[in-house]
Amino acid sequence: MINPQSLANALRLLAMDGVQAAKSGHPGMPLGMADIAVALWHRHLRHNPVDPKWPNRDRFVLSNGHGSMLLYSLLHLTGYDLPLAELKRFRQLHSKTPGHPEYGYTVGVETTTGPLGQGLANAVGFALAERLLANEFNREGFPVVDHHSYVFLGDGCMMEGISHEVASLAGTWKLSKLIAFYDDNGISIDGRVENWFTDDTPARFEAYGWNVIRSVDGHDVDAVDAAIRAAKAQSAKPTLICCKTVIGKGSPNKAGTHDVHGSPLGDAEIAATRAALGIAAGPFEVSDEVRAAWNAREAGEALESEWTRLFEAYRAKYPELAAEFARRVSGTLPADYAKLSNEALAAIVAKGETIASRKASQNALDALAPHIPELLGGSADLAPSNLTMWKGCSPVRDAGGNYLNYGVREFGMAAIMNGLVLHGGLRPYGGTFLMFSEYARNAIRMAALMKINPIYVFTHDGIGVGEDGPTHQPVEQTATLRMVPNLDVWRPCDAVESFVAWQVALEHEATPTALILSRQNLPHQPRSPQQIADIRRGGYVLHEAEGSAQAVILATGSEVGLAVAAQALLASEGIAARVVSMPSPHLFDKQDTAYRAQVLPKGLARVAVEAGVTDYWRKYVGLEGEVIGLDHFGESAPAGELYDVFGITAEAVAQAVRKLVKESA
Amino acid sequence: MINPQSLANALRLLAMDGVQAAKSGHPGMPLGMADIAVALWHRHLRHNPVDPKWPNRDRFVLSNGHGSMLLYSLLHLTGYDLPLAELKRFRQLHSKTPGHPEYGYTVGVETTTGPLGQGLANAVGFALAERLLANEFNREGFPVVDHHSYVFLGDGCMMEGISHEVASLAGTWKLSKLIAFYDDNGISIDGRVENWFTDDTPARFEAYGWNVIRSVDGHDVDAVDAAIRAAKAQSAKPTLICCKTVIGKGSPNKAGTHDVHGSPLGDAEIAATRAALGIAAGPFEVSDEVRAAWNAREAGEALESEWTRLFEAYRAKYPELAAEFARRVSGTLPADYAKLSNEALAAIVAKGETIASRKASQNALDALAPHIPELLGGSADLAPSNLTMWKGCSPVRDAGGNYLNYGVREFGMAAIMNGLVLHGGLRPYGGTFLMFSEYARNAIRMAALMKINPIYVFTHDGIGVGEDGPTHQPVEQTATLRMVPNLDVWRPCDAVESFVAWQVALEHEATPTALILSRQNLPHQPRSPQQIADIRRGGYVLHEAEGSAQAVILATGSEVGLAVAAQALLASEGIAARVVSMPSPHLFDKQDTAYRAQVLPKGLARVAVEAGVTDYWRKYVGLEGEVIGLDHFGESAPAGELYDVFGITAEAVAQAVRKLVKESA
Repeated sequence: MINPQSLANALRLLAMDGVQAAKSGHPGMPLGMADIAVALWHRHLRHNPVDPKWPNRDRFVLSNGHGSMLLYSLLHLTGYDLPLAELKRFRQLHSKTPGHPEYGYTVGVETTTGPLGQGLANAVGFALAERLLANEFNREGFPVVDHHSYVFLGDGCMMEGISHEVASLAGTWKLSKLIAFYDDNGISIDGRVENWFTDDTPARFEAYGWNVIRSVDGHDVDAVDAAIRAAKAQSAKPTLICCKTVIGKGSPNKAGTHDVHGSPLGDAEIAATRAALGIAAGPFEVSDEVRAAWNAREAGEALESEWTRLFEAYRAKYPELAAEFARRVSGTLPADYAKLSNEALAAIVAKGETIASRKASQNALDALAPHIPELLGGSADLAPSNLTMWKGCSPVRDAGGNYLNYGVREFGMAAIMNGLVLHGGLRPYGGTFLMFSEYARNAIRMAALMKINPIYVFTHDGIGVGEDGPTHQPVEQTATLRMVPNLDVWRPCDAVESFVAWQVALEHEATPTALILSRQNLPHQPRSPQQIADIRRGGYVLHEAEGSAQAVILATGSEVGLAVAAQALLASEGIAARVVSMPSPHLFDKQDTAYRAQVLPKGLARVAVEAGVTDYWRKYVGLEGEVIGLDHFGESAPAGELYDVFGITAEAVAQAVRKLVKESA
Repeated sequence: MINPQSLANALRLLAMDGVQAAKSGHPGMPLGMADIAVALWHRHLRHNPVDPKWPNRDRFVLSNGHGSMLLYSLLHLTGYDLPLAELKRFRQLHSKTPGHPEYGYTVGVETTTGPLGQGLANAVGFALAERLLANEFNREGFPVVDHHSYVFLGDGCMMEGISHEVASLAGTWKLSKLIAFYDDNGISIDGRVENWFTDDTPARFEAYGWNVIRSVDGHDVDAVDAAIRAAKAQSAKPTLICCKTVIGKGSPNKAGTHDVHGSPLGDAEIAATRAALGIAAGPFEVSDEVRAAWNAREAGEALESEWTRLFEAYRAKYPELAAEFARRVSGTLPADYAKLSNEALAAIVAKGETIASRKASQNALDALAPHIPELLGGSADLAPSNLTMWKGCSPVRDAGGNYLNYGVREFGMAAIMNGLVLHGGLRPYGGTFLMFSEYARNAIRMAALMKINPIYVFTHDGIGVGEDGPTHQPVEQTATLRMVPNLDVWRPCDAVESFVAWQVALEHEATPTALILSRQNLPHQPRSPQQIADIRRGGYVLHEAEGSAQAVILATGSEVGLAVAAQALLASEGIAARVVSMPSPHLFDKQDTAYRAQVLPKGLARVAVEAGVTDYWRKYVGLEGEVIGLDHFGESAPAGELYDVFGITAEAVAQAVRKLVKESA
């Protein structure tokens, strides 16, 4: 039996050499958590490096993602497709070892981390997904879904507010297969945390209903091992293992100081560390004996084979369940989705309802969700306002369910949704007021960065909120969300566009979607079949001008009605204007030049109208066009009055068109 | 002695009538917290309705701001300039009673609330400001700064992550004059919170080092009164008074349900409530006896007079301190600021250093901060990276100091800064990486909405971050911050612009400033005195074209160097291009048309370059211009390589100019 110290030191060596080669990075955490990593990865983690996507693998999250070299070292040594050459190219362009772990970039990395606290939230999502899928798919004697979710986290994660939101939910949900390791090293970037972080963290987590294992020596592999065994032995609560560690453990002159957190040790200190740890090997050298002990390929294949046998027996007994499980894990929509979805769209078109787009969104869910069992809804305590519950919703409590009451926790919700998507088998959507998308903003960005597909239901989308006033009236949020790369932001103008928005959102595989929805009713817009098809192109001609168009009016959401009214006003004066609805600029911008030029022909006067900041629209109307919107905060008053007071009216749109048409005449 | 129940019922009556008149609003919280409000406002709060700006008043924050009618009722009844007519116009256009309490809109409202959790953070800022000012200004026998800060909060505030961040800091800072009232009514919008909020909140706050008074009957005024007395009697810890209440207390059919949270009671239920409470009075009617008992004008004037006598004696003994206190409270800069500041600028200009703008920011602090004692620095655990500490910094621990280690708590930091500004007497600045401005985003917006002037130091401003990769490389953050109304976003290109940015930020009275600063060195740009003066205009001609300009290149921050290099490339080919530096579009847009047209003349080809999303720049270059930037996420690699790989180079800028000049020829 190999000495665990040798296993840990191999991690330390690769981490400090990798950081040194890159001349940048964070050696302190890998050196400090190496022994914990040995206890977990060498003695407990059930995974298969040969098949990183094995559905029943344990999930591992490095919430303190700056310690990425620890994870890369573990993946490399246990046998994932991450050769030593990649560790030597740590942090270099297009290497498989970026500065922080990136999902989709390195095999075995389950989620992108770095922004602190969110990894813990992702892990809560993993553990919740496991619970829900186990409840849905497991049968007596067939635990086809049965794995743990582990997460490493540091003082930074513990200080972030999101740790409160998601630890509270994990406790409420009793996620007993979630096991977190707190790297309690007493150091953060500003120095010793005692002056800015004095929480009794174990007591805090006990207050959330967690099983807390206190005061574990994080450099004693057997002690950590015992704590993991204790955590796995209980089935009532999530577990926090509090590990006392020394940051940069092994470095004779820098261990225990914040100097070791985020800078290479330097050649001299690396030599001193090698000497102190009794390592004779050169840079990046790991002995065959240690390599053999770390290699988990054979053990992993055995684990997966065992599971595959179980699953085949399950398939024999429950063929439909097994097929459904396979579909769910693959992330493909049900076979009848396209047909059902098109039929439902036809019904919506036929109905031609004038309703709020938040209500239209609920109707879309009522039509589609019964056929898409992977849909897992939720809201940050605004279900009756976001209208995120559909008729078949049942809240998740201890066992199953398809709707999550996230409480007033927007950031936690969005980051948990990321974990749910990444786990596979579930498709989360979650709601809040558009304004409070700001609380969740960086988790939304992380979804876009990871190329995953959660769906956000952001209602109460502008001054139409009315009396709640400027704290609740988004004016810049829609525009700024549109600037997040790879985020598809839809602001539909009626029930038909709202339904198509849901269709597109569901069909996106590598793109998150934000549905920006109104509180107030929006008039139905009649359309031809071609126009209905063109909604998916993100922008299209909704109402053609009578006669040769002199101007184009672009609008979204609740302002499309104003654009149509302006068009009528202008027509009565002999001015021919076209109305373009632009529910998704993200998709419109992806259309070919010919289509875009057809919708927005050169040389026509252009006026955009949206009840928000105007700068965004310059990309479509240029310097010569006009934008009707508002570049200031809203006010508390009935919504209709606000539109008038702020001059966002059909007459204002018409006047802008008149002026431009006259100028160009 | 009047029955406290009568006092509470007057609050209930005004609140339910106000909401009913508005046909919108939140009656549940005011009815539920009315008795707590009596205990605090009638028996403890030291304020003067005649002078709402009395510097030594107790501060009161309604963190659960949707219960605004409770606060309006209290302000009205205690004698603030808020007539009954305004309560009758609750939530109407330009009334003094907007849907959520708004600072600067209604006298006596200390901060704008509504976005949950932030009011608690503001209150932490108030209590910290009191502590720091008391430490600085009080002398033996002269407690000129000596007040409490009180805050009401509900389940929503408790669930939000920010409550964790700021309660942790309040405990660490031992803010014993902070007293929070938790409205523990067990109801949130989705229903009974037991399914999504199971924290042992008292235990959680004890883990933060708070004094927790458990299980107080929130409808027993004497019990709440006793808890407040106990809280005031200790001087070691902040206090949380946990009040068990019934939401909508008094409403016979709706109390205790979420139906009463956010909708008018309706005429029938109001009548039933009146009957149940034994109120004979009609809508908005309060008896003279109750009015007299609530009126605090005389008592308030007496309190302030007493303090004024104390302050006059203090002035006699410590004239300089008293004058300084008066200046600090007035929010004006020191008399010698302008002179010192201009001298420092001249020195920076003369030095002409090539340094990172984050370093230039630190140099600006070193030059200015010694003369501006109200400056209170800080960082969310990135002091060595943000370079927010200057030579004279001393960290705030138990007593004084001028620098805050906020820990890894960006949102908490920004919201506490809002409280510090609102208190008066201090001028906070706080740093984090630009990327993590996203964690703080809604608190930044709240500063802009409240027209207050905190200063954010956001460093590591783009792909120049390099190896840390896309999780840490802002690409859309600068553009999206610019879209927040009334936020002045500066991205300076060298040490001189960085200094001017600090000057303007300090001089702003009603505008928050975000300083967007580089990690990497930026070359010094030579300028004439006029150009130096023009930096304050937000955009100006930095390098005029040789000969008649054919094109304008706009740039900010680290890309100004590229623009200048492109100009030289083009000049060598006989193409005359002007370089415009645009550090603050916010201020440039406020210049008159003539100035703007002079900087950006019509008819010239325009190319903008900024290492971020390109859409923003369409407002300056239109559809015909070109933008060199990136509309995708970054990568982990050395910064220089990234600029080349993403095509953000002087040659790319030059090529864009060549193309446009050729097209227009």
